[in-house]
Amino acid sequence: MPELTLTTLAWVPKLPRGYVRDLRVRWALEEAGLPYRVQSVPFIPSVPFRALGADQIAHQPFAQVPWLSDGDQTIFESGAILIYLGERSTALLPTDPYTRQQALNWVISALNSVEAASLPWSIYQFANDIEQTPGRKHLDAFLQARIEYTEQVLAGREWLAGDFSIADILMADVLRLVHRFDGLAEAPACRAYVARATARPAFAKAYADQMAHFAAAD
Amino acid sequence: MPELTLTTLAWVPKLPRGYVRDLRVRWALEEAGLPYRVQSVPFIPSVPFRALGADQIAHQPFAQVPWLSDGDQTIFESGAILIYLGERSTALLPTDPYTRQQALNWVISALNSVEAASLPWSIYQFANDIEQTPGRKHLDAFLQARIEYTEQVLAGREWLAGDFSIADILMADVLRLVHRFDGLAEAPACRAYVARATARPAFAKAYADQMAHFAAAD
Repeated sequence: MPELTLTTLAWVPKLPRGYVRDLRVRWALEEAGLPYRVQSVPFIPSVPFRALGADQIAHQPFAQVPWLSDGDQTIFESGAILIYLGERSTALLPTDPYTRQQALNWVISALNSVEAASLPWSIYQFANDIEQTPGRKHLDAFLQARIEYTEQVLAGREWLAGDFSIADILMADVLRLVHRFDGLAEAPACRAYVARATARPAFAKAYADQMAHFAAAD
Repeated sequence: MPELTLTTLAWVPKLPRGYVRDLRVRWALEEAGLPYRVQSVPFIPSVPFRALGADQIAHQPFAQVPWLSDGDQTIFESGAILIYLGERSTALLPTDPYTRQQALNWVISALNSVEAASLPWSIYQFANDIEQTPGRKHLDAFLQARIEYTEQVLAGREWLAGDFSIADILMADVLRLVHRFDGLAEAPACRAYVARATARPAFAKAYADQMAHFAAAD
């Protein structure tokens, strides 16, 4: 089997540490017990949302990390990488077709229903911007609706679809950033879910490894 | 084979018509030539981002449309539905493993790298909010970076990964909404790509069917 190689940045400032998306991939690899190595590319501290130089765009067209190499295949986008790994390990996706599809539904929900609301909201939080313009009110209402519906679901189940899966890695990581900015104050089931997910040994290992990786380049 | 049933809203106001996400599913079904029927649920005109009543949340946990039923399986999230259909038709995903994975990478890119930037930006456009607060500047820069990188890719290829695929349905539909608010002014390759994609007979059929569906309930 070709060796799996995870590529991330060599270094980032302290603020995003613990939240760089290679964490999702490390977490999945640790859950599955798949061997992998980590490779670094330089961080270009130019303008926001452009972390990589032009020579890296062949691997990740949006100049972001992570990407995963498996032989001559390059998989980019943390969501795509997790689906790819999910097809390789029963620790990451259910085997029965019904529950497996439900998990895949939730993979996309985490990325396109919840994170599409939480990521822009977090941009405002990072900018310390609290001005309630008309658009901002809609953006906040967008996230609030998504958190409330997620709360209803998580109040009734331990994991999103059957046993713990890549859907939970993505949803827990998305909600973790919302929680960082106190966006789960009225969502106790979401908070309990984040606590449950991040208490898993594979998360602890992935988190410690990411922190150590960036600290080593300080 | 069980009949595929696409569920969408019975009616929506004129503004979102032509952009409701059942369009993506109709488009894919038309490209693949898969038979399907369309079923409606009532639109609850309460608050934004909550289009469905509580009894529908069992089908779509975020109170949104569309969802697809295939026997006893419910697939929700337009991205998940398109991946599901992609596994059923070679008209929607490449068959060779390398190109197929690249298409899946781009499926997630469209949803989580481009739409995660364009959807919140469009919320500000719909609200006619032009105030350049600090957070808004970051949100605009976020979308601008994603459009510029997409432009570089599309300047060099006709479709994202091999032949036309579900990645193109998603990316073209995402960019179409950006274009509606003149966000592709400096991205000629993106504009040409949207024009190329929406010139396909399957798009024309899907678009006309959505418009007729909502108009029938006026």
